Amino acid sequence: MNMLIKEPEDEILKKEQAFKIIRSILDKEGREAIYDLTGLAGGFPIKKEDKKLLETYIGPAIYEKKLEKLALEHLGGEKAIAFNRTTTGILATIIALTKPREKIIHYLPESPSHPSIPESAKIRNTEYLEFDNIKKFHIPEKTSLIFITGATMDHKIIKIKEFKRIISLSKEKGIPTIVDDASGARLRTIIFKQPTAIQLGADLAITSTDKLMNGPRGGILAGKTELINKIKRVAYQFGLEAQPPLIAAMVRALEEFKPSKLLRTLKKRDELHLKLKKSFKSFEKTPTGVMIRPEKIKKEIQKHQIKTPLSPKDTSYLWSMILLKEHGIITIPAAGMPGASPTLRLDLSAADAQKLEPDQIVNILEKSFQKLLKTAKEPPKAKKLLLGG
Amino acid sequence: MNMLIKEPEDEILKKEQAFKIIRSILDKEGREAIYDLTGLAGGFPIKKEDKKLLETYIGPAIYEKKLEKLALEHLGGEKAIAFNRTTTGILATIIALTKPREKIIHYLPESPSHPSIPESAKIRNTEYLEFDNIKKFHIPEKTSLIFITGATMDHKIIKIKEFKRIISLSKEKGIPTIVDDASGARLRTIIFKQPTAIQLGADLAITSTDKLMNGPRGGILAGKTELINKIKRVAYQFGLEAQPPLIAAMVRALEEFKPSKLLRTLKKRDELHLKLKKSFKSFEKTPTGVMIRPEKIKKEIQKHQIKTPLSPKDTSYLWSMILLKEHGIITIPAAGMPGASPTLRLDLSAADAQKLEPDQIVNILEKSFQKLLKTAKEPPKAKKLLLGG
Repeated sequence: MNMLIKEPEDEILKKEQAFKIIRSILDKEGREAIYDLTGLAGGFPIKKEDKKLLETYIGPAIYEKKLEKLALEHLGGEKAIAFNRTTTGILATIIALTKPREKIIHYLPESPSHPSIPESAKIRNTEYLEFDNIKKFHIPEKTSLIFITGATMDHKIIKIKEFKRIISLSKEKGIPTIVDDASGARLRTIIFKQPTAIQLGADLAITSTDKLMNGPRGGILAGKTELINKIKRVAYQFGLEAQPPLIAAMVRALEEFKPSKLLRTLKKRDELHLKLKKSFKSFEKTPTGVMIRPEKIKKEIQKHQIKTPLSPKDTSYLWSMILLKEHGIITIPAAGMPGASPTLRLDLSAADAQKLEPDQIVNILEKSFQKLLKTAKEPPKAKKLLLGG
Repeated sequence: MNMLIKEPEDEILKKEQAFKIIRSILDKEGREAIYDLTGLAGGFPIKKEDKKLLETYIGPAIYEKKLEKLALEHLGGEKAIAFNRTTTGILATIIALTKPREKIIHYLPESPSHPSIPESAKIRNTEYLEFDNIKKFHIPEKTSLIFITGATMDHKIIKIKEFKRIISLSKEKGIPTIVDDASGARLRTIIFKQPTAIQLGADLAITSTDKLMNGPRGGILAGKTELINKIKRVAYQFGLEAQPPLIAAMVRALEEFKPSKLLRTLKKRDELHLKLKKSFKSFEKTPTGVMIRPEKIKKEIQKHQIKTPLSPKDTSYLWSMILLKEHGIITIPAAGMPGASPTLRLDLSAADAQKLEPDQIVNILEKSFQKLLKTAKEPPKAKKLLLGG
């Protein structure tokens, strides 16, 4: 039971508190004093010549075509569409390809799923089944759509054998598959050398243009023409499509994307992880950085003979907010959307990570952890820090 | 029965055909040869200093606050949120404030409604009732949300007496009201001198930042804090919120919005309408331009002793596509979203309208109508023009 953040509304208040801190740092010290290490900074790399063409009917006429070409190179498939967020692409797909009372099943390397899939299933009034154990995976009667998550929010990667197994079972039954490759479209392929989702036989694949690349928050869905046409209709119907300014920025981000940049972060990650071990036992490597899970944060606190009524998640939110307030470091537990992963993760592929050496990061984590130890003993103070007021 | 455009998928093909023509004009003759008279051009007036702040967590921290201030000045209310489109704001409101099997009722000056309201009601599994006759209006049991449309897609305006009557009936029953003031927030208030929706007692009001102002396609919802908080949660949950680049452009558009500019178009509209009468009987005035309804277009064709198997809507789509192809004029029947109004409407408040004198517009309409007469006799040719291939 969380003590500080109890409901989704609290998560919104927490996010607003984080935004308030960001504004105050920007006002006082400028953009340089902020380090967005979410790996989701959401760049907006449009060029000067783009700006005057970003109108409702003129923008898409130009950029949708360019986007499609680049998207198909990146993801494969026959046709593509850009969404306001990957989450809206998932909503559109579920509305377009399932009917109420049918079933949606989902295989992922480790539960829980990103909330967008079960929540969209619920709004569509479909039944949702989640598996993270391939031995238990099966496709029940009345299943109309199968999700595969390529890489989880905490960057755990699907095994290629499991991926193939699910595709082959789906094909046997003739049920369409969509791969949520939000970060996976780059993580899986570039760092783990796996084929793209579509090369592996998926009918559809969706990726986030702000994850491990310098695009805006948003999603691109690619795959079979017949399915994309159905989904596109739903997208326009409910206003889920990306607008021209986003599409133009996605085009530029795809044009400028370089796998080599991602590969260079691996060395830095290894150095950071090694140095962190001296102070903290529980930081794990992620494909492009390091992370510590909420339960492990609570254990690190308890190692210091400190008793706290805070839940593991609360401690993660709190550490994240301290990192922001004292050091200008943005991470997901403080600034993320409701339902985002509470794992404290530092992404070294982020543009701002270039401004920080591993030693500096270790130093910041040590200092902020001392502050966390103090605050964890005083729940009212902790609550004020997280929710303001 | 439409002969050429039968299904929503055909409307998407038609839109893609329009985009193809726009691309080809841009390539050959440049932006100057295009006249977007939709009144929905969707400007993107960000400034140089905005561009570097449009990131996922930094952008909203700055612009959401600014937007809220300007939005509350424009619409009234206590709290505001920006959406990817007005349609997504309506979807979020319906998901947040109604439950399956409850009722949503809608009063508007003239049916049919913009499709976003009945379609969102359907996806939520609620019952939808529409009224455009105040004498028949009533609030049945199990109603949980009441929509009022301030100005229709064809710019028909609600009577203030009817508006007040619905608000008072809603308040009696304690049911929340939302005003779809997509264009109405400016049309009703500036041209018809009506109070804002919130001044009239509505709990929520939503407007489109691309309608009668130079903002991006997108929506702003304002109203009571308690309701906005619930809707905001749903917005983030399904990815319906506007992203930072859109929010920044909305901020600039609201800063630069001038009612006087809108009022100046009235004189030009009257001149155009008078001159058009010599050639066409059926053009009507709209608050900021002129329009002709599909049935009237078919009648104008028949006046010339021409028999055509095309439906009224088909003739409107066709005229609109001819205007685009031959004269670079963008109107909704050719380039709009599926379900958009098939009325051929020219909006003189559009930025591009400044490039055209009334005499030029009359001349273009006469010429393109001659082409329409020819094409209406040859359905296969008409179909190719509309859908390509």
